[in-house]
Amino acid sequence: MSVRIDETASGVYVIAVTPFTETGALDEASIDRVTDFYLEKGVSGLTILGMMGESHKLSSEESRATMRRYLKRVDGRVPVVVGVSAPGTDPLVAFAREAMDEGAAGVMVAPVPTVRTEEQIHGYFAGVLDRLGDIPVVVQDYPLTTGVNISVATLLRLFEAYPSIVMLKHEDCPGHAKLGRIRNAPGRRLSILVGNGGLYLPQEMRRGADGAMTGFAYPEMLVEVCALFAKGEAERAEDLFDLYLPLLRHEAQPGIGIALRKETLRRRGAIGSAHVRHPGPKLGPDDHAELGQLIARLERRLSAGRTMRAAAG
Amino acid sequence: MSVRIDETASGVYVIAVTPFTETGALDEASIDRVTDFYLEKGVSGLTILGMMGESHKLSSEESRATMRRYLKRVDGRVPVVVGVSAPGTDPLVAFAREAMDEGAAGVMVAPVPTVRTEEQIHGYFAGVLDRLGDIPVVVQDYPLTTGVNISVATLLRLFEAYPSIVMLKHEDCPGHAKLGRIRNAPGRRLSILVGNGGLYLPQEMRRGADGAMTGFAYPEMLVEVCALFAKGEAERAEDLFDLYLPLLRHEAQPGIGIALRKETLRRRGAIGSAHVRHPGPKLGPDDHAELGQLIARLERRLSAGRTMRAAAG
Amino acid sequence: MSVRIDETASGVYVIAVTPFTETGALDEASIDRVTDFYLEKGVSGLTILGMMGESHKLSSEESRATMRRYLKRVDGRVPVVVGVSAPGTDPLVAFAREAMDEGAAGVMVAPVPTVRTEEQIHGYFAGVLDRLGDIPVVVQDYPLTTGVNISVATLLRLFEAYPSIVMLKHEDCPGHAKLGRIRNAPGRRLSILVGNGGLYLPQEMRRGADGAMTGFAYPEMLVEVCALFAKGEAERAEDLFDLYLPLLRHEAQPGIGIALRKETLRRRGAIGSAHVRHPGPKLGPDDHAELGQLIARLERRLSAGRTMRAAAG
Amino acid sequence: MSVRIDETASGVYVIAVTPFTETGALDEASIDRVTDFYLEKGVSGLTILGMMGESHKLSSEESRATMRRYLKRVDGRVPVVVGVSAPGTDPLVAFAREAMDEGAAGVMVAPVPTVRTEEQIHGYFAGVLDRLGDIPVVVQDYPLTTGVNISVATLLRLFEAYPSIVMLKHEDCPGHAKLGRIRNAPGRRLSILVGNGGLYLPQEMRRGADGAMTGFAYPEMLVEVCALFAKGEAERAEDLFDLYLPLLRHEAQPGIGIALRKETLRRRGAIGSAHVRHPGPKLGPDDHAELGQLIARLERRLSAGRTMRAAAG
Repeated sequence: MSVRIDETASGVYVIAVTPFTETGALDEASIDRVTDFYLEKGVSGLTILGMMGESHKLSSEESRATMRRYLKRVDGRVPVVVGVSAPGTDPLVAFAREAMDEGAAGVMVAPVPTVRTEEQIHGYFAGVLDRLGDIPVVVQDYPLTTGVNISVATLLRLFEAYPSIVMLKHEDCPGHAKLGRIRNAPGRRLSILVGNGGLYLPQEMRRGADGAMTGFAYPEMLVEVCALFAKGEAERAEDLFDLYLPLLRHEAQPGIGIALRKETLRRRGAIGSAHVRHPGPKLGPDDHAELGQLIARLERRLSAGRTMRAAAG
Repeated sequence: MSVRIDETASGVYVIAVTPFTETGALDEASIDRVTDFYLEKGVSGLTILGMMGESHKLSSEESRATMRRYLKRVDGRVPVVVGVSAPGTDPLVAFAREAMDEGAAGVMVAPVPTVRTEEQIHGYFAGVLDRLGDIPVVVQDYPLTTGVNISVATLLRLFEAYPSIVMLKHEDCPGHAKLGRIRNAPGRRLSILVGNGGLYLPQEMRRGADGAMTGFAYPEMLVEVCALFAKGEAERAEDLFDLYLPLLRHEAQPGIGIALRKETLRRRGAIGSAHVRHPGPKLGPDDHAELGQLIARLERRLSAGRTMRAAAG
Repeated sequence: MSVRIDETASGVYVIAVTPFTETGALDEASIDRVTDFYLEKGVSGLTILGMMGESHKLSSEESRATMRRYLKRVDGRVPVVVGVSAPGTDPLVAFAREAMDEGAAGVMVAPVPTVRTEEQIHGYFAGVLDRLGDIPVVVQDYPLTTGVNISVATLLRLFEAYPSIVMLKHEDCPGHAKLGRIRNAPGRRLSILVGNGGLYLPQEMRRGADGAMTGFAYPEMLVEVCALFAKGEAERAEDLFDLYLPLLRHEAQPGIGIALRKETLRRRGAIGSAHVRHPGPKLGPDDHAELGQLIARLERRLSAGRTMRAAAG
Repeated sequence: MSVRIDETASGVYVIAVTPFTETGALDEASIDRVTDFYLEKGVSGLTILGMMGESHKLSSEESRATMRRYLKRVDGRVPVVVGVSAPGTDPLVAFAREAMDEGAAGVMVAPVPTVRTEEQIHGYFAGVLDRLGDIPVVVQDYPLTTGVNISVATLLRLFEAYPSIVMLKHEDCPGHAKLGRIRNAPGRRLSILVGNGGLYLPQEMRRGADGAMTGFAYPEMLVEVCALFAKGEAERAEDLFDLYLPLLRHEAQPGIGIALRKETLRRRGAIGSAHVRHPGPKLGPDDHAELGQLIARLERRLSAGRTMRAAAG
């Protein structure tokens, strides 16, 4: 039996990549490998077929295969959220149902880029959510990519009207104040996980976020930061976060980010190839060198920290 | 054996709707009916699964079914161009090959919305066209919808580098001068068909267009206008066009246009339902009345014209 | 004493051009000439320094000079609305006050392009309107240009909160249903004048608009269409409109429209030069010929109409 | 006699704020104060009236007053670049000339948001640069804000055609590879200063940038980082940068950034009020607390670093 996500979800739901072979075919063996990698790093859940999962570059058949392979490998150990955002509601709903039948814990939906006013935004989600029934839903609020700006009022109205919405993926920017207003609003308390590549994670945890839903290639840091916050050790959490910030900021660059992330995961042995499907970014020799330099700097810092702690111990 | 489009294509390649039943299922019987309708009106070709064909709201399986049904019903009587634009090149190429295998005459490709500079635009098309091989390609230049502005220089460079590009669907706006520059450029002479709902058809024909690729619900007018231009009777062509212009301008409204077009086709008996898939526009009672009024005005004018011609005859 | 616009305003408030000399200097003599031209054509009011008035390409000093010259020439014969939209509220308010002191009848304000949610839109207008006090305000709703989509609910809320808003310049597109909803909403009845180059004027008048606020170079047609609608002769109004529609649609093209409009006004003797300031469109020889052809076609039709009416008379 | 910038410019050209009083009036006394602050921190130059200088919210008269006051206070000690970007070329050129007459070292120009293709972009700059004559020009390449994407080819073509362009303000993102390509291109070597709030400064310096043009409220860090890079001490430079990165990343948030920056400058005693003109962001109590926390963390780190260095010394 599969677990469904609910409002109490917290921790790190890692945005999982969709691995390809060097020639661009779906690499199902690497799905297994990266699943193990994520689970070893302690994530609380997986989110597959999100924007960074290159889901829009898959055929329906490939999306289905990716979804099944991930679900099979995870095998119920953690909840798996499936990104189902699509330009048409009919295929969206059909795929969401299929995912739930296969054992998904919930689905994630971002608004289509053509809705603008709150009435249109509300109407869009109503049209989708009415048909999704009781499937647990994560609303993705990512204006930079969707072009859709959802106000706090509209979000709260949706949360009120649709109990099936159990989680908000917050990645508006600037968004700290918005997050705080949602957290402090009366009414049902949802799970709020943050995206934006994790760039503002400590500030967002201090504002009341429950965790992160992002794909930084060192998910163990995100996991530990969230754990430290859960224990009330905010300053220590932020110290740890800051160690990784130079690399995280590098990976969070728009456009080229997915290539940097896949290459880092490849270097860490998590996937077989860093191939990004066309159209997509490609790293040149200087990009590779630069990434290597930032990783080396991170490793030196981590190692210095360990030495210091050992000496202090 | 199927015919392939080439640089000599002209006349009206009607942008075909994808008909749905009232409950949103693909309506294959209406595909047959509207195919017959288009052919009776004298179109030179069909373009299926374009933006106005709601192709982005279909699953891969539905796209395939639509494509097959249209090709089967047309049965080689006119060439059928298949819209294959997609966010990922792998599924795009796979579908294009499948369409050609099934008898399509060529495919239409618009750039993905994320490319900006000419280098990126050229790189995008190169990545796609290299893989499409010798499949005849229509490049769709529609900045209002794609957000991608392709300069004359980049278009000409692409035409030069890729002989498989045989047609330009021109719908830049303002675009008359651009059309003229492309038409008058040295080098290979491509077919240029115009879109933009046909709103500027006479001016564009005078600038050297070879026809129209648009889905106005009275395609017989587009057909006759193109025929008159071909006979050198530009003023008569424009007189005819102007009769339909009030309705055409109404249907060409962004956003609501597809709903108006489908409703008009339904009223003309060409499809069974005017259903537009979610998310999409819906006509209210006032919209229906308004459309009826414009159609009635058109019919009065046409009838007055016939009376006058009869009296004069 | 100057007249102020109020909710009863109707008819044509022509969007007035800002004329320049061939070398780009402000052409104050042509301001006088085009003012006389507009008044002779029967407009009910003038709107100066709007977007089509190239106001954003003027220095503060030139805006002031344009405003003063127009007001002086009009000399109270019709109300003059002054466009004051600006990225900063401080200069906006200062200029609005100055305009009112000089005899303007009201000011027109469009939202800055950075506001997105209804809360932001309302907040923007509140910040401006609170400081404008009792100056009569026209809210310009033109999403295509501003990128700001204002819902019916937000507009009505603003109208309710700010009695100083006396008019809506409606140019959302598609916008007929929106116009109808605003017109039929309970509460204060504002003046609604339509823009969008006048492209949908008859349909909008049928939906309850009170007139047009646009700059089509044959304002006499707009004036007569509005007058006929006021007399209840909708069909005759639409017949007249349709005669001009081919040219109007040509002039309404984005980007190049201002150049076509100024050139038409120049040909009609209303301004000395068609110069558009840099950066802006320039007409080539083919554009000139095309415009000439459309004007010639219009004149033939008008003359045929007169002949027919004379024969019938 | 004033100094003009040329291709050898390097170091930090700080983007200077425009200070207002609590009621929104131009605060000329704070211009003096912040000028002294910037100079004490060791900047190589000032850039005034940039986007972060809220220049678009000033009247022409206020822009002039700001420019004069800054130039007077700087009094030739460092070069001052004046932002002159404007929707109209005539006022742009007039203001640029005035600035040069008053002692500016050069002007900065970003493209208007309406140009799209390379032909249009080149045409825009040509129209401006031809009229600016030999005034030294900084081209600002900031697609996120302008919406204009300039390719490397177009930039190089402009640099070749216009020797008056002496500097590039690079803030494309992702932009490291672009920066490298420009730096390594044959032809004239321009000064390249980087923006983007400084978020990628070390990587950009490694790619060949000559310094930074940004307004981070701790300019002394930017100055020292650039100085260390100039001495070849890249790793030490990056170590220093990373100390400030958490705060810098916070300040670099779009939308709210200018409010955070002004508040930080106010806390440091550099300006009298953190007022941002309407429409603009406002900090709430939580934003203030959050900023204070980040500043406190920075200060603890800096102090720990000093202690460690003292102990080591």
